[in-house]
Amino acid sequence: MIKNITIIGAGNVAYHLCKAFVEQGINPKQVFIRSKSKAMPFAKMGVELVHNAAEIKNSELFILAVNDDSIADAAALLPAGDALVVHTSGSVPCEILKDFSPNYGVFYPLQTFSLEREVDFKGIPLFIEAANSATESKLKELADLLSDSVIVSTNLDRRLLHLGAVYVSNFSNALFGIANQILEENAISFQHLAPLMRETVEKAIVKNPLAVQTGPARRNDKETIAAQLNLLKNSPEEKEIYEMLTNYIINKYHTPQK
Amino acid sequence: MIKNITIIGAGNVAYHLCKAFVEQGINPKQVFIRSKSKAMPFAKMGVELVHNAAEIKNSELFILAVNDDSIADAAALLPAGDALVVHTSGSVPCEILKDFSPNYGVFYPLQTFSLEREVDFKGIPLFIEAANSATESKLKELADLLSDSVIVSTNLDRRLLHLGAVYVSNFSNALFGIANQILEENAISFQHLAPLMRETVEKAIVKNPLAVQTGPARRNDKETIAAQLNLLKNSPEEKEIYEMLTNYIINKYHTPQK
Repeated sequence: MIKNITIIGAGNVAYHLCKAFVEQGINPKQVFIRSKSKAMPFAKMGVELVHNAAEIKNSELFILAVNDDSIADAAALLPAGDALVVHTSGSVPCEILKDFSPNYGVFYPLQTFSLEREVDFKGIPLFIEAANSATESKLKELADLLSDSVIVSTNLDRRLLHLGAVYVSNFSNALFGIANQILEENAISFQHLAPLMRETVEKAIVKNPLAVQTGPARRNDKETIAAQLNLLKNSPEEKEIYEMLTNYIINKYHTPQK
Repeated sequence: MIKNITIIGAGNVAYHLCKAFVEQGINPKQVFIRSKSKAMPFAKMGVELVHNAAEIKNSELFILAVNDDSIADAAALLPAGDALVVHTSGSVPCEILKDFSPNYGVFYPLQTFSLEREVDFKGIPLFIEAANSATESKLKELADLLSDSVIVSTNLDRRLLHLGAVYVSNFSNALFGIANQILEENAISFQHLAPLMRETVEKAIVKNPLAVQTGPARRNDKETIAAQLNLLKNSPEEKEIYEMLTNYIINKYHTPQK
């Protein structure tokens, strides 16, 4: 089992990975954080922080938990050696790290992380890929320590999962934002929608979203749709989204009654 | 407190309202279900079912838990008397029941109901409206028995809430359906997205969706956006939705870096 882990990065993924390792009794050897202003949450965990790339010591595993377009730069900071190197991106191919061949791979936790929100890392799907089977075994052993759901995946799998994540998380959140705006503008609490939001997600997970579509568009209820579009008459962008998604649902889900 | 309640309707709202009353020790006097094929779930609760409108007895309260466009027809079935009459719609004005003046109102539970899924009715926001304050008091007393969150509301409030519900529930579910389709077509389990879906909703509820928007569009990450559009090249409708929501997020949330 790998015991010496070094994390490169100061973002939400770096923080939650670091925390998950600490909780499993593996204190990262070092965490490299360029900006001292981001050090506090890591310092609280009692891990050794370095702010100068020259201070990065050799290690068994380097985890590059940085933005997609910084992976190559982060890799260039590492000391020479035969350490295993992985990135944490859902989109970027494994091969961006091929200079470390055959000691490279991917370690992608599929979740939306924030500094302020605790997560149960054990419940987070962790997708791994490795340059060869020896490297894969080492990554798998470590990943199994953090998550109950470790999946060996291809780059295409991860790209499709990331695309799915954009729909279910980023795009859904934008819709939540529209609802929030409509209600708050009228002094109605967005919190009234909370039980509905939770149940919508549980239903889609337990039963399959294709089987549980409901609402005015599903029924092609023209009167309600027209009345709702009228409520949106001063919000052209939100109205356009309403029209597009309504037409999509009618075309895909509505079965005309005989 | 009203003790004699009659429910008109056999759908999901009728079923869950009936169940919530039974659980609070108020067995509805009768439930009117036109089609015998829908009677079983109600029969199991031990309530008296009638299938012929002529058998509907007088009552203290009639709850018309039917589709929006069937409310007027359902009201026409009721026996003459001074009973209180309410509908359960988020969209239809109270005044559709004004023939029963001043004994009419609205009793709108904001949730997505299915026969197969248990709900905690106490946690469901229940919006009420009444023709006068005496009627409102009676409805409020009854509503407080079922829900911890009873709100006196106007028709406009309910229409805005229903519009918000369409965005956070119907439209989000359609996005979940797109993600499901993308993954299942590639033999990847949709269940991998479940922890992300749950956390997305919790974050939006606890922190406000406008504050927690993330993703490629939020960062205006053109490379990832182009790569994801390329994955969608054989799904024109899903691609159009991706483009529209991405542009919406860029315009609304992205702050260009200096």
